[in-house]
Amino acid sequence: MEFFLTKPIHISLDAMGGDYAPDIIINGAAQAKLRYPNLIFSFFGDQTKLDPLIKALDLSSFSNVIHTNEVINSSDKPSTALRKGKNSSMGMSIQLVKSGKADAIVSAGNTGALMAMSKLILRPIDGIIRPAIAAYFPTINGESCMLDLGANIECDYKNLVQFAFMGQAFARIVMGVKDPSVSLLNIGEEEQKGLDYIKEASRVLYSLNNEINYKGFIEGDKIAKGISDVIVADGFSGNIFLKTAEGTAQLVTSYLKGAFSSSLSSKIGYLFAKKAINNFKLQMDPRKYNGAVFLGLNGVAVKSHGGTDAFGFANAICVAVDMVQHNFISDLKNKISKSNLNF
Amino acid sequence: MEFFLTKPIHISLDAMGGDYAPDIIINGAAQAKLRYPNLIFSFFGDQTKLDPLIKALDLSSFSNVIHTNEVINSSDKPSTALRKGKNSSMGMSIQLVKSGKADAIVSAGNTGALMAMSKLILRPIDGIIRPAIAAYFPTINGESCMLDLGANIECDYKNLVQFAFMGQAFARIVMGVKDPSVSLLNIGEEEQKGLDYIKEASRVLYSLNNEINYKGFIEGDKIAKGISDVIVADGFSGNIFLKTAEGTAQLVTSYLKGAFSSSLSSKIGYLFAKKAINNFKLQMDPRKYNGAVFLGLNGVAVKSHGGTDAFGFANAICVAVDMVQHNFISDLKNKISKSNLNF
Repeated sequence: MEFFLTKPIHISLDAMGGDYAPDIIINGAAQAKLRYPNLIFSFFGDQTKLDPLIKALDLSSFSNVIHTNEVINSSDKPSTALRKGKNSSMGMSIQLVKSGKADAIVSAGNTGALMAMSKLILRPIDGIIRPAIAAYFPTINGESCMLDLGANIECDYKNLVQFAFMGQAFARIVMGVKDPSVSLLNIGEEEQKGLDYIKEASRVLYSLNNEINYKGFIEGDKIAKGISDVIVADGFSGNIFLKTAEGTAQLVTSYLKGAFSSSLSSKIGYLFAKKAINNFKLQMDPRKYNGAVFLGLNGVAVKSHGGTDAFGFANAICVAVDMVQHNFISDLKNKISKSNLNF
Repeated sequence: MEFFLTKPIHISLDAMGGDYAPDIIINGAAQAKLRYPNLIFSFFGDQTKLDPLIKALDLSSFSNVIHTNEVINSSDKPSTALRKGKNSSMGMSIQLVKSGKADAIVSAGNTGALMAMSKLILRPIDGIIRPAIAAYFPTINGESCMLDLGANIECDYKNLVQFAFMGQAFARIVMGVKDPSVSLLNIGEEEQKGLDYIKEASRVLYSLNNEINYKGFIEGDKIAKGISDVIVADGFSGNIFLKTAEGTAQLVTSYLKGAFSSSLSSKIGYLFAKKAINNFKLQMDPRKYNGAVFLGLNGVAVKSHGGTDAFGFANAICVAVDMVQHNFISDLKNKISKSNLNF
């Protein structure tokens, strides 16, 4: 291992998870290393495949490889994953964080399995009833984050209130927003609108206004306006929000592509505007926002999109690095223990 | 009244509903009349305001005006609306359809009030447990429709199965799709994913495959790809889908605007591509898709967006005209009575 000017950050990587593993895992690690030279890695997976890739990218002196043949498949149910998980690349990479040897784990594998195993191995923070999945996404003003994105498809008001506090901590500590505003996703802004447990969560959050900058309900069409830093939802609605936004952005981009190839004049226009259009595409590039965070666990666990490339995977690693650098877990634990959220 | 080559279609209009009533109502009617010369109108509202507008647009010989001062406000709860509704422009315009004198009612007023009053006055079709709100929207392939969009924020599997049949009828009769494919909105495509009542609805729909072209679950990011003609959801998720899609389309358009004004070169590019960009904007113009339909009632009731303009309101009228021309109600009744949906 090399000498580091800053404290090294040790990332544990499930090198076999995702559609293009292990290639994009190793390549992503190499890209993240360029951004954070103090990174070191533990790669879990098939050593015969990993060693040549690591060598080719000159990562050997910053990397451990721990061999395992066991892999969690994308089609495995969480229950199956838990059974065979202990010796899998996913399970072993989480275990390294549990043991305190690594600072964070990143995987592009099966989301349900990763959440189930992370919960089992890392355990929820004291007082947190259910951990949640959070991610951030672009808005007109910058970025907002949302949770839950699918870990809890049915929630009660207590879960939503806790998500609000976890999201607030994430926005403050990782996104750098001083006093993050928090809203609840609903189908109307009036108090009488929506499902009972959402209305109850809203009442509780208003009553905690010395602890949280709660703004009330927000509708799906207002989120992209960036008027709230944190959007809280049950995992079913949150997942639908995020996927719909992705699908719509793709649709609009495809319409745009069609428009620019529709005539000679528009093709000339495209050439003049090419740089601006590329910047526009970059603004919405889903790879930039890759890296969904499991909030509420005793350890940093980040889920990369399974189909991303090395640039996207590097971003997921960088989300984990951000959380480690900002002491997210101890900060959140501190906040939770001080708040009256132990329902 | 003039002599019509084709049978006249009589549209009952709540002339006081929406943000820009009565102007856009009358102007919208005039625009719809240009597309369907066989339209005649009954306008309900403040006669002193309506008469000059109708006269100015030369609609007098195709229009009745029925005076009322009572208006349902956008902030009125459905219960309030039901109390004061009988003599309101909204209530009276629905009543004209109930009496058989008009073929359809269109309003840009309060959605909850319009649904509550339409249900009370027009009554659900025999066998339909709950009516739903449906609308269509653009996809890469053309158009798809979705229901429910907010009339029923909590559903059971029976509701979803009935929505599937009503959506299928809408896509077939009004959108002109021969054998419409139907999917259930969910957060995964695998059978074990999602909430229990959605999984149960899926099992029932698979068992009815001689009556419905059911394709299984669909996720939010796949909808815009146009792989299914009809998307069925509970009213909460459906509302979040539709509003998120709207908000994201606005976000992308705003990014694009920023990109084109970012440099001299991009501004020149914009000039060359202006026509193509305008066509692109038109493809996603929400006014084109204005007109949400209440399905499952004994009468055609269409809800226009409250903030639309005359072009948008004309489109909502044209959705109603389409349903009347294609005998939607009798066709759906026929289908429902033959199907084994009387749970």
